[in-house]
Amino acid sequence: MKEGIGIGLLGLGVVGGGVAKALRGKGETIARQAGSPLEIKGILERDPAKGPRLNIEPELLTTEAEKIINNPEIDIVIEALGGESPAWEYIRDSILTGKHVVTANKEVMAKHGVELLTLAAEHKVNLLYEASVGGGIPLISPLKQDLLANDISAIYAIINGTTNYILTRMGKEGLDFATALKQAQELGYAEADPSNDVNGTDAAYKLAILATLAFHVEVRPEDVYYEGISRLAPRDFRYAKELGYAIKLLAIAKKEGHSLQIQVHPVFLSEDILLAKVDGVFNAVQIEGDLIGKVLFYGEGAGALPTSSAIIADVICLAQSINLGLSPGLELWLDPNKIVKPVSEIETRYYLRMTVTDRPGVLGQIAKTLGEQLISISSVIQKETDRMAQTAEIVIMTHPAREAAVQKALNEMAALEVVKEISNFIRVED
Amino acid sequence: MKEGIGIGLLGLGVVGGGVAKALRGKGETIARQAGSPLEIKGILERDPAKGPRLNIEPELLTTEAEKIINNPEIDIVIEALGGESPAWEYIRDSILTGKHVVTANKEVMAKHGVELLTLAAEHKVNLLYEASVGGGIPLISPLKQDLLANDISAIYAIINGTTNYILTRMGKEGLDFATALKQAQELGYAEADPSNDVNGTDAAYKLAILATLAFHVEVRPEDVYYEGISRLAPRDFRYAKELGYAIKLLAIAKKEGHSLQIQVHPVFLSEDILLAKVDGVFNAVQIEGDLIGKVLFYGEGAGALPTSSAIIADVICLAQSINLGLSPGLELWLDPNKIVKPVSEIETRYYLRMTVTDRPGVLGQIAKTLGEQLISISSVIQKETDRMAQTAEIVIMTHPAREAAVQKALNEMAALEVVKEISNFIRVED
Repeated sequence: MKEGIGIGLLGLGVVGGGVAKALRGKGETIARQAGSPLEIKGILERDPAKGPRLNIEPELLTTEAEKIINNPEIDIVIEALGGESPAWEYIRDSILTGKHVVTANKEVMAKHGVELLTLAAEHKVNLLYEASVGGGIPLISPLKQDLLANDISAIYAIINGTTNYILTRMGKEGLDFATALKQAQELGYAEADPSNDVNGTDAAYKLAILATLAFHVEVRPEDVYYEGISRLAPRDFRYAKELGYAIKLLAIAKKEGHSLQIQVHPVFLSEDILLAKVDGVFNAVQIEGDLIGKVLFYGEGAGALPTSSAIIADVICLAQSINLGLSPGLELWLDPNKIVKPVSEIETRYYLRMTVTDRPGVLGQIAKTLGEQLISISSVIQKETDRMAQTAEIVIMTHPAREAAVQKALNEMAALEVVKEISNFIRVED
Repeated sequence: MKEGIGIGLLGLGVVGGGVAKALRGKGETIARQAGSPLEIKGILERDPAKGPRLNIEPELLTTEAEKIINNPEIDIVIEALGGESPAWEYIRDSILTGKHVVTANKEVMAKHGVELLTLAAEHKVNLLYEASVGGGIPLISPLKQDLLANDISAIYAIINGTTNYILTRMGKEGLDFATALKQAQELGYAEADPSNDVNGTDAAYKLAILATLAFHVEVRPEDVYYEGISRLAPRDFRYAKELGYAIKLLAIAKKEGHSLQIQVHPVFLSEDILLAKVDGVFNAVQIEGDLIGKVLFYGEGAGALPTSSAIIADVICLAQSINLGLSPGLELWLDPNKIVKPVSEIETRYYLRMTVTDRPGVLGQIAKTLGEQLISISSVIQKETDRMAQTAEIVIMTHPAREAAVQKALNEMAALEVVKEISNFIRVED
């Protein structure tokens, strides 16, 4: 066993600071688990004020990444910078100098994960990334180990806490999107620039990481079709409730043979299922396999403490391996066959909401347009009539239909003289 | 790397048969994950008819355990016999002959786990037991690895599918216990002799295993206070619903300093929390730690396929270690300080249901008895009056109170002339 394992930390922000604090505050417990003490040998941080604030000796801080990457006393580099660059170059260089790496970086792992994991295997080091998806919830490790015997067929995930918080408030309190977003920002659940969360990018990165592991194919961010939540209106939530659904931003990955369906968008989820009951900033990931059936993992998907839980578990795992003289795990095996279905080919049920002229025969014209595209109607609600404007609102739930047909029908309906507005369409997962 | 890893299988029942089938049906995938093929070299099974039924060559079957335990071609023994003896002796002997062991046996792990794990560490082999709790749901492995950085403070678990199925039927359809049990038996969710499930023993074994791992102390089955579900009546479910609760058989383990509270019994669980929504034969385990907050693991807790998912994952993990030339993990570290609080010292809220004489002043007498034990009342329902018998039913929800005081008050109330019957008391977890 080594007398001490040297740790280099890149970044002392919310996550990095949490890791530094936990590594020191729990030194004894961690040393017992790891087999020897873990010692922070260097921290990359531009802001010199952060060290003293976290009781970190000034001599540990550096503004030069090379001082960490090339330090022979450092065995494990923890990357907690976030963002694509320079994080991924630092991870790459750390691997090239023979260091193990632990990262919480979803963007780097989604965009460069396979390449970095392959490089790590070549250089006989490990790259662990449990914290990159779902904060402290074990997800990567179950997919890499516990569920290995399964042929995984589907992942359904609520993996963006910001949007789940906003949708929960909209659903429970009838808030509009802008107000719910503002509340989330005030509570620190949404960033000043919330684009990556609300437009689905963040969830798409995480889904690419999970799908790559689950399906043993390289799923790249550009393989993921994604939509955000900003077009949802309070009345969509009212209709959803009336029909027995919750609205969630769902990350969906399904596999049939070599064909994948990988997408992130708002869905109607039947109120009865457990995922529909995941509220607030919580995350939940449901994985379906041939042996296990359905398993679901639930918890806080972000935050300094949960994220450092995952990072330190990865660090302890690496330290144990180092102490046991273990060479790193098997190389990543990826199936070269990959067919990603375009979203136009998916088949699902749809919720359609539109404003129409309030006069006889309108529903007939709409039904005819849907019928021509072989879309059959499961239920219709016509409720709110605006007497002044002489318009009515119609909500249609369809039976399963192909996305391409639905899009075509929506275009044709928008062109009908009696249709004032196609207000929304939302896919349904039962 | 070894050319092939030899597997010995003890038992070809539901679980063993599932494992044999999966090991063969998924041979190629498993070999890729494990690093080399896994070959079944021998199967202990008394019933010679089972081999042909599962397409297993007769020469692999034996009725003598020694032929497995002493076979030098076998690297890993899978124990799928169930029950305490001879399973635990076979596990012990396999360890003594230098074999790694994978078991699904909750009774053996609850009663002899620490001793067997210590023996395994001494003999430089591994004993893995993911399948012993929660079927295919990853629980042991998250506690051993992913949550290592946490100080675990509590476990709340629905870990017996039979009782959860019965309680779900009683809650949703108003069935009485006997009818719901009979339905469960007809569907194969309850055994002909259901005692171990319905009286809480099975859940107590599983909780002892989880608590030992989570708290790093040896929790023995006799440390677990347990009660079953047979005293629950349809009207308890009706009152629960009216008050906003579900009734679940909950396994609870809490730690404060060195003091543990470990018990299995029916509880009122607020309908709002996710655990209350776990229905049917599903299991769910919520773990609370200082870094992760709350995480919840959910899935099928039993059955041949989910259980073989966990067993094969353990086998693959061992095969990888063997192929990487890895010596087994760190020794089990257990804190010798253990104080298990007697149930009389726990403090919680209570639901009390009783039949009383229907006349003025009765509630006053009951309130006085409770008050003398410093138990304060949170709410009272008095609804059903039996005019013929001149009795009424009273339901009381208390504020948090000590169990000893509540038991004393219940005894005193039972002795009151106006109290015809103390019908039930159920602890409340909010």
